[in-house]
Amino acid sequence: MAQEILVKPIGIIHTPHQVMLNTPIQPIAAQGVKGRIELYDEYVTGLSDLDGFSHITLLYHFHQISGHALKVIPFMDTEERGIFATKAPKRPNRIGVSTVKLLNISGNIIDIEEVDMLDGTPLLDIKPFYPRYDNRSNVAIGWLERNKNLPVENMRADERFR
Amino acid sequence: MAQEILVKPIGIIHTPHQVMLNTPIQPIAAQGVKGRIELYDEYVTGLSDLDGFSHITLLYHFHQISGHALKVIPFMDTEERGIFATKAPKRPNRIGVSTVKLLNISGNIIDIEEVDMLDGTPLLDIKPFYPRYDNRSNVAIGWLERNKNLPVENMRADERFR
Repeated sequence: MAQEILVKPIGIIHTPHQVMLNTPIQPIAAQGVKGRIELYDEYVTGLSDLDGFSHITLLYHFHQISGHALKVIPFMDTEERGIFATKAPKRPNRIGVSTVKLLNISGNIIDIEEVDMLDGTPLLDIKPFYPRYDNRSNVAIGWLERNKNLPVENMRADERFR
Repeated sequence: MAQEILVKPIGIIHTPHQVMLNTPIQPIAAQGVKGRIELYDEYVTGLSDLDGFSHITLLYHFHQISGHALKVIPFMDTEERGIFATKAPKRPNRIGVSTVKLLNISGNIIDIEEVDMLDGTPLLDIKPFYPRYDNRSNVAIGWLERNKNLPVENMRADERFR
């Protein structure tokens, strides 16, 4: 069995979402919603050359979730699904991934848009979004096929995950 | 300053790549290269409903990298870039993200294709790839613009990162 790994936040994500209730369930449901990353000073050198990218992928810790569940009823459905077949936050290791718009970088402050995470979220990593590596086409989407016409852009979280 | 977070591998990724030298630098450079996830038994229930997806995003630990650098010369370039403007492995928290093809699930074994990580890589999470959430269009790609015609599909790693 592999060893535990210690992860250290590199900054904090500030957003308008104070509680889970009514938080957008994905960046595409957060159009126009602005946030701000406060990167810890020791990492600022790592931001060089990032300003030319329009989108960045954030890895972060779902810090308001305790424990995990192996089956959940996701926001997009009314049936229980295996946690790894969903993006629900109550998952082993509670690491979230969101691709957001990059608006501006000034010192250790990064202005972003389309934020779907809670205020105060510990940031673990920033990666540039590069369509050639990150987009996929000809994709089968399993149980989501049935729900692909749901108006996700308008969907908000309830309090099912804690 | 935020607290450290303890992350616990949920399984191991087996691949044909024993050393960094000549490993594909991204899944798109690993077409046809098969691998296998061995999920620890306690998480198998979480795989329900995953089999309908053609692509899954893996989060994992770059376990062969020690420490981090804030500036690196990435595989796609000859100049130093800020680590957060690259996907290079020698980064704070050393978490990798790769979207691979899902071939088959049988008990705790998941057969995958387009693997670009080293054999024995500790797996941290599996998420379903859902184009509506995960693809982006109209993207600016910063310093990568200059190198966008490089034949990434054929590019392999050297030993610059350890």
